[in-house]
Amino acid sequence: LKLLPQIQHGGKVPLPEQIATHFERAIEARLLRSGDRLPTIRAVASRCRVTRSAVQKAYQRLAARGLVESTVGRGTTVKGQAAATSGVTLHRGVFAGRAEATFHHAQSMAQIAQLPPGTRLVVSFARLAPGEDLFPVRAFSASLERVLREHGGQLLDYGESGGQPRLRALLAQRNAQARETDGEILVTNGAQQGLDLVLRAFTEPGDSVAVAVPTYHHLFGLLKLHGLQPVVVAHGAGSPRAGFDAGEWERALALPGVRLLYVMPTFHNPTGNTLSAAERAQLMEIVQRTEVPVLEDEFERELRFAGEPLPSLRSLDRRGLTVTVASFSKGLFPGVRIGWLQGASDVIQRIAAMKRFCDLESSPLLQVALADFIEGGQLDRHLEAVRAELKARHEAARAALRRAMPEGTTWTEPDGGYVFWVELPAPLEADVVAAAAARAGVLVTPGRLFDPLPKSQRGLRLSLSSSSVAQIGAGIDVLGACARELLRSGRSTTQPLFL
Amino acid sequence: LKLLPQIQHGGKVPLPEQIATHFERAIEARLLRSGDRLPTIRAVASRCRVTRSAVQKAYQRLAARGLVESTVGRGTTVKGQAAATSGVTLHRGVFAGRAEATFHHAQSMAQIAQLPPGTRLVVSFARLAPGEDLFPVRAFSASLERVLREHGGQLLDYGESGGQPRLRALLAQRNAQARETDGEILVTNGAQQGLDLVLRAFTEPGDSVAVAVPTYHHLFGLLKLHGLQPVVVAHGAGSPRAGFDAGEWERALALPGVRLLYVMPTFHNPTGNTLSAAERAQLMEIVQRTEVPVLEDEFERELRFAGEPLPSLRSLDRRGLTVTVASFSKGLFPGVRIGWLQGASDVIQRIAAMKRFCDLESSPLLQVALADFIEGGQLDRHLEAVRAELKARHEAARAALRRAMPEGTTWTEPDGGYVFWVELPAPLEADVVAAAAARAGVLVTPGRLFDPLPKSQRGLRLSLSSSSVAQIGAGIDVLGACARELLRSGRSTTQPLFL
Repeated sequence: LKLLPQIQHGGKVPLPEQIATHFERAIEARLLRSGDRLPTIRAVASRCRVTRSAVQKAYQRLAARGLVESTVGRGTTVKGQAAATSGVTLHRGVFAGRAEATFHHAQSMAQIAQLPPGTRLVVSFARLAPGEDLFPVRAFSASLERVLREHGGQLLDYGESGGQPRLRALLAQRNAQARETDGEILVTNGAQQGLDLVLRAFTEPGDSVAVAVPTYHHLFGLLKLHGLQPVVVAHGAGSPRAGFDAGEWERALALPGVRLLYVMPTFHNPTGNTLSAAERAQLMEIVQRTEVPVLEDEFERELRFAGEPLPSLRSLDRRGLTVTVASFSKGLFPGVRIGWLQGASDVIQRIAAMKRFCDLESSPLLQVALADFIEGGQLDRHLEAVRAELKARHEAARAALRRAMPEGTTWTEPDGGYVFWVELPAPLEADVVAAAAARAGVLVTPGRLFDPLPKSQRGLRLSLSSSSVAQIGAGIDVLGACARELLRSGRSTTQPLFL
Repeated sequence: LKLLPQIQHGGKVPLPEQIATHFERAIEARLLRSGDRLPTIRAVASRCRVTRSAVQKAYQRLAARGLVESTVGRGTTVKGQAAATSGVTLHRGVFAGRAEATFHHAQSMAQIAQLPPGTRLVVSFARLAPGEDLFPVRAFSASLERVLREHGGQLLDYGESGGQPRLRALLAQRNAQARETDGEILVTNGAQQGLDLVLRAFTEPGDSVAVAVPTYHHLFGLLKLHGLQPVVVAHGAGSPRAGFDAGEWERALALPGVRLLYVMPTFHNPTGNTLSAAERAQLMEIVQRTEVPVLEDEFERELRFAGEPLPSLRSLDRRGLTVTVASFSKGLFPGVRIGWLQGASDVIQRIAAMKRFCDLESSPLLQVALADFIEGGQLDRHLEAVRAELKARHEAARAALRRAMPEGTTWTEPDGGYVFWVELPAPLEADVVAAAAARAGVLVTPGRLFDPLPKSQRGLRLSLSSSSVAQIGAGIDVLGACARELLRSGRSTTQPLFL
């Protein structure tokens, strides 16, 4: 029973509309094709806990839109794709190929690590966003109120190109590293816009970007949008857990058409790996030689709860080829959508000019409110609390892993950040274990979300951003039980995932 | 004495640094090339009202960076371009061609409609941004405070893909038009991001975009960034004042490679022209036939102070080929950086998927605060006040134009919005008149900012967004006096503009 809609009971959208939209999108995404049968009305009603009449209305609506037809004996089947999906006769050829590819990529991504319909969430190790309970809402609200009182309409006017000087100065000061002399800051809409802008600065469609896989999954959609190819850099010993392999980077950067390398040196997403000082030096030596620009993603650098800070790649770069991207989304909260790029002034000037044409600038109000918040010492106090909490969560996770997981399971033990990586012993497959855990209400992210190739995986990402110490122990116990049960029953081969 | 730096006395940046940076950027933008002489130290010191020692220090700094050399008898001259500009030995070839082109375009644009150094601003008709004095700061601050109290951390978390439902519903409702059934909303970072996203959805590098010139100047940089060519559509009777010419659009849309048309049907920037209902119908008839998607920029539609509202192009579109872009920047204030796209659900879904990869989403906090502000009726009250003020300003401008401008001057008289267009009688040239007015402290924007080709222009854009009724009369009197003086003295041929 794939393809059952996820119903929001008590939501604003009427149930028939929710059901109709679900199938409409599935048809549009070509998950259901011409001739495919929809589940019976009775099945949808019973599995989704809605009335048969609601499902019937939904199917009638789909028929009215020309998407499905009902035949006695055959049930409801999908009609040809030629029919429009939204009442307009839009010719699909008008979309740019990259846009179309990006859209379908997004649709397929959206199905990974979802809770099966009707299942109660116990713990989510899938979500990577700091918990709302930790947000310093009052203090930030006070900063907003204060800066609006002090500066008035100025903060609601167009702002400064490149970002508000008050915030830029703070960011430059907080992120200066020993050997840097020439860092400049550009304020962006979160780290994600930083990635987009750096790709615009260094690549043209058809170029390639070198990246160690698994990696941040939103990078792949962005590459598609830019018409870029990922050049996959393998990890040492072939295991994401093992990390850096200089020879692999050397090989990748020497390939023609590789115009950029993307790397998360600290608390890598999804593995939690951190490059050692020696590995950083080695990587940057290759970069200086090959002259390939570096996009250094430091999305969680401020979340170190153990060990010593390491030099950024940018600080090891004698050529000004490295741009660092970072944001407030993981250390503070994501909703202000403020991140930044830091790099050599030549580079930042060019990217700032591009940002002007992309969206002029980020909100001056939010920038200055953040500056006020930082100046008052609130950010540092908050980070301290987050780091202490993260340390406790990782310790709880490690204890639970040791106790709950089947023999042969390995995992990373990062010194900071929200995520770590679990590798299951053969013959367990990540997709199957993730699906079994999801049926038991525990969400983990199977490795394929972080890989451009749909291949068999043993790796899972666990994020500790949204769970308490107690929930973490309970969730990993469930995960371990699912893995053991699959090993015991022998049902450990690949199965199609639920939608 | 071109190329004199604009000094900020009492600014944070030391004077020698300001002067050095100015020349460094001029060299980088190729406004000064190898062998060009810098102004003498004495000339810079006297015109910019700084000490000779400050200028000397600046020149020494430029020499130390390898950018210039001083020779007895020849003064200070620019060295070869190969030298680095910022202390890092960055190889310029690493930038994508589009990024480099965009950067140089931005640099040359930045020099248009600037006040000459040492001149006191009397009136700016150049700035197109609502005046801060009109901003409802307190009411918006109260909305921010209220929604944070009500929803807390939820508004500082990641938001909904496509925008917060509360704001989207309001926007859909406010912008529904008679014949529409299928409009969907995507919240963007101001209208500018909407333009960027629509270009991403419908074009690939090398394609063309049809646009009636003069047009919104930030479009050209965006086209460069996307590797797109503008296909220029001429106005009726060859005059921007005259407006729409169906035959020209027909011809442009039939050209191969034209994948989009960009049009501002209401209170066009820079002319103030509005397409009549018949012209809209005629344009959309051509669009339905040629199947070229339409980017309809409605940046000032809510600022009508006279005449009747007209149907949007989107409401006349039977094919779902039109995406409308709009924002709060001109009607309310720009600093929240919130705009939106509206179009058929197929199109909006695809663009929403792209926005996810570009910057995830716009700030949920600002979106919901705006929704609260709109629900409280504050936006409508504010718009009413702005419209009344605009009406008075346009009336003042028209009276002043009749009294002050030389015979043969013509202008548009829009029913709304901030801008209108003045055409000077021959042999007056827009650049020369604008330069003369700027020397007298009155800024207007010469037509070439809005044209991709650097050609002789008679047109000026005047924006009434930042001046009171009294200032408007005084400013146009100065403009008229400058034009008359140029006609009288015969110095009305093209001159290089001040930097």
